[in-house]
Amino acid sequence: MSDLILRNVRPMGGKPCDMLIRDGKIAGYDQDAAGLPVEDGKGAIVIPGLIDAHTHLDKTVWGLPWHENTKPAILRGRIDFERENRTKIGIDPHRQSMRHAICLAAHGATHIRSHVDIDTTHGLSLAEGVWETREKLRGVIDIELVAFPQSGLMVMPGTLELLNEALRQGCEVLGGIDPCGIDRDPKGQLDALFALAVKHGKPIDIHLHEQGDLGAFTMELIFERIRANGMQGKVAISHAFALGMNDYLRVGRLIDEIAALDVAILTTGAPSAAVPSVMRLKEAGVRVGAGCDGIRDTWGPWGQPDMIDRAKIIGMKNGLRQDSELEHVLHIVSQGGADVMRLDGYGLKVGDNADLTLLTGETLAHSVVDVAPRPLVVKGGRVTARQGVCVVDMP
Amino acid sequence: MSDLILRNVRPMGGKPCDMLIRDGKIAGYDQDAAGLPVEDGKGAIVIPGLIDAHTHLDKTVWGLPWHENTKPAILRGRIDFERENRTKIGIDPHRQSMRHAICLAAHGATHIRSHVDIDTTHGLSLAEGVWETREKLRGVIDIELVAFPQSGLMVMPGTLELLNEALRQGCEVLGGIDPCGIDRDPKGQLDALFALAVKHGKPIDIHLHEQGDLGAFTMELIFERIRANGMQGKVAISHAFALGMNDYLRVGRLIDEIAALDVAILTTGAPSAAVPSVMRLKEAGVRVGAGCDGIRDTWGPWGQPDMIDRAKIIGMKNGLRQDSELEHVLHIVSQGGADVMRLDGYGLKVGDNADLTLLTGETLAHSVVDVAPRPLVVKGGRVTARQGVCVVDMP
Repeated sequence: MSDLILRNVRPMGGKPCDMLIRDGKIAGYDQDAAGLPVEDGKGAIVIPGLIDAHTHLDKTVWGLPWHENTKPAILRGRIDFERENRTKIGIDPHRQSMRHAICLAAHGATHIRSHVDIDTTHGLSLAEGVWETREKLRGVIDIELVAFPQSGLMVMPGTLELLNEALRQGCEVLGGIDPCGIDRDPKGQLDALFALAVKHGKPIDIHLHEQGDLGAFTMELIFERIRANGMQGKVAISHAFALGMNDYLRVGRLIDEIAALDVAILTTGAPSAAVPSVMRLKEAGVRVGAGCDGIRDTWGPWGQPDMIDRAKIIGMKNGLRQDSELEHVLHIVSQGGADVMRLDGYGLKVGDNADLTLLTGETLAHSVVDVAPRPLVVKGGRVTARQGVCVVDMP
Repeated sequence: MSDLILRNVRPMGGKPCDMLIRDGKIAGYDQDAAGLPVEDGKGAIVIPGLIDAHTHLDKTVWGLPWHENTKPAILRGRIDFERENRTKIGIDPHRQSMRHAICLAAHGATHIRSHVDIDTTHGLSLAEGVWETREKLRGVIDIELVAFPQSGLMVMPGTLELLNEALRQGCEVLGGIDPCGIDRDPKGQLDALFALAVKHGKPIDIHLHEQGDLGAFTMELIFERIRANGMQGKVAISHAFALGMNDYLRVGRLIDEIAALDVAILTTGAPSAAVPSVMRLKEAGVRVGAGCDGIRDTWGPWGQPDMIDRAKIIGMKNGLRQDSELEHVLHIVSQGGADVMRLDGYGLKVGDNADLTLLTGETLAHSVVDVAPRPLVVKGGRVTARQGVCVVDMP
């Protein structure tokens, strides 16, 4: 069942060809292979599967009654409200992460990096719900989990021990959050995070909403610890709003360090914030991926579980208009995520995994702005979605 | 045919009721009227028709082969490229404005204010194409035209005479554009515009992309001329990016003047620019409408001809999350546009025109973030669109 001929598709918008898939991998182009199942691509563009490299599978209220939001936009208040009310609202981590991940797959994603809250109220139970989803969706979408101290680390004693346990039980990445803004103790949080990451030999992906000089200060503390612990190439900074500050030279010095230490940046193109320029990061050779972030949760109502929708948001926010720029946004939501997550076998070369998304546009740029559903999604050579509908039913 | 019973709808998200429509107007609620045609609203929310109060019907390449954009984002370059190439690209003003307006109607709009380029290359021919569309779509969507000197006024001699003729022949509003940035002569352009508007007794709607202190300076020149010509309540400023500058007190003084002179503001929530805060304008009692601006044209690839899509963009850009804030965005894309355009008979009161849009959400806020097509659109008591498809075919 993981053998397939994908007929009449245009790899990266190029010339039409037939793609031969054997044992879940791309076996060749324009080769004859009688007897295999055939999917007609009808001339659609094919790219490697879309990647949501920054989301929160354990948070959405998708499919629940509308959640009325009457709370002011204060970070600490939102964090505490969610932690204290998520169970009573009905945010079952398994069911809700199934809904979220199935929607992402339906819209062409084949890989997810999801943060999952680890806190002293819920222990590891939210991660356990998402682990169950990961097992159920094996072969449909790959899910990598970041053990994420959403409520803070230093201000919530007991969280460090839970993060240790989450990494021991299988979270692939260690998370962190605003060492100044949330934890009020940047040295404390960062020293603890780096020690834990080194102990487990795992990478770090830290939420950094801190803006301007504050965020730049925290970045510098992160850089120091990457050097001290030899973690070059193993740290990602999510959001990195400080890189959106209006100080060209200061931002340039930060980006130089980011490039030198091979730090990855994950952006959501946050519409109301100052965000890193994806074109400037490209010029500096920085690995950049993207994610939908939280989707319709207690934090806010926005977002779609769809990486083409997110590509639009990132492209508009960055003021991109030229076709070559739109192609780069498409790169960020696919290959860029693979670069951040260090995925093996990702791409369209012979021998790569047959994780594929068909797009509707005439060109790659057109595909970013078109709103039609993805005609076909393939994971390991199996069809996982057609016309925006996943083969797995929503619970 | 303009009599109708709209059964089981929830006005502004309130309790379900039946709406009686006679002679194209709302005749009553929950009244019996045998023999009239009936539409089942199935419990959907009903609001007055959506309003795109700032668009460019004469510019889109919608439905044409993909337009590859290889040009840098320089305003003057884009203006000149479009003027010199629009015919050869196939941007027929009648056909393209039909496509654009039909899409807007399909997504729930019942009124449009469109700028239309008036320049020495095309004379009035672009306006004529859109006038033809206005006639063909009478009863489907109302179109108001702004005679717009896209290529500049002072730098393009002959344009003033064409604007005069466009107003004489029926453009309802006089447009203007960046008196400093494009015309390099703010006194010249503004004096000429105000004299022409006074002569015709018509309102002004001026594009003001100028940012920061430059845009603030131009606004002050506009304020002086409103006072001098007694044009309080008759001037709109589109974009008004200067109100997005990071100087709370300076912006406050500008908004005070805007409120005192009853200037209307039209926003597109431009994702990559500094934009006016819609909540601050609300607090000041300023009339605010919104528009999709150009949709997939030679300027850029973005945008959908859909005012709910635009409400999302404005809401996200403004950092709005609470239900009450989302309700205000919905207000801007409906009643707000009517306030700017001074529409008579707009609303859900008995006696108002039966220009109505059904929404899919459980609540008004939910309707802003939902992506489902509008179930039904009614104009003057006639059904004009169902499930995102207009009763008029696309040419």
